[in-house]
Amino acid sequence: MILVIGHVKIAPANVAAVRPTLQTMIATTRQEKGCILYAFAEDVSEPGVLRIVERWESWEALAAHGKAPHMKVWSDFLKATATVLDREVIAYEAGETKPL
Amino acid sequence: MILVIGHVKIAPANVAAVRPTLQTMIATTRQEKGCILYAFAEDVSEPGVLRIVERWESWEALAAHGKAPHMKVWSDFLKATATVLDREVIAYEAGETKPL
Repeated sequence: MILVIGHVKIAPANVAAVRPTLQTMIATTRQEKGCILYAFAEDVSEPGVLRIVERWESWEALAAHGKAPHMKVWSDFLKATATVLDREVIAYEAGETKPL
Repeated sequence: MILVIGHVKIAPANVAAVRPTLQTMIATTRQEKGCILYAFAEDVSEPGVLRIVERWESWEALAAHGKAPHMKVWSDFLKATATVLDREVIAYEAGETKPL
């Protein structure tokens, strides 16, 4: 399994404007092949920080997601609508796993 | 590196009441030895779902966090203040890593 942890930080004033399109992108992504978990969430301590968490069945499924047309729509929309202050998204192959 | 991905789902009406104590717990946890990332975030698509993402230097650091007194304070507060509808928290050792 592949995990993705990341964040996009936008101007806090832009969050409301991006939320509906973000929700649509999330719903579309959750239909993609190999998608186990896909979520964006608003950090409770850092306004404007959108946390990203994902689980995918394989590197291939994640790569296909990266090339999906709806992701370009989202990316273009985000740049046009919000001031993006920071971005970090990292994928990891899952090793030893422990429920907590 | 150890990654943690999880969520706690509470009644949406309870989110505002838990937020200040949650913010305090997060700030305290970020001071813990071996903590690289520790965040809670409100899911943009699922009201009441608090997404959890963490990065720790080692299993030992994560285990020490689990036993920290301030985590029992948080856990007791959460149960007393909110209706917890669902919870899943899973730790993973990070394997092959790719920035996206």
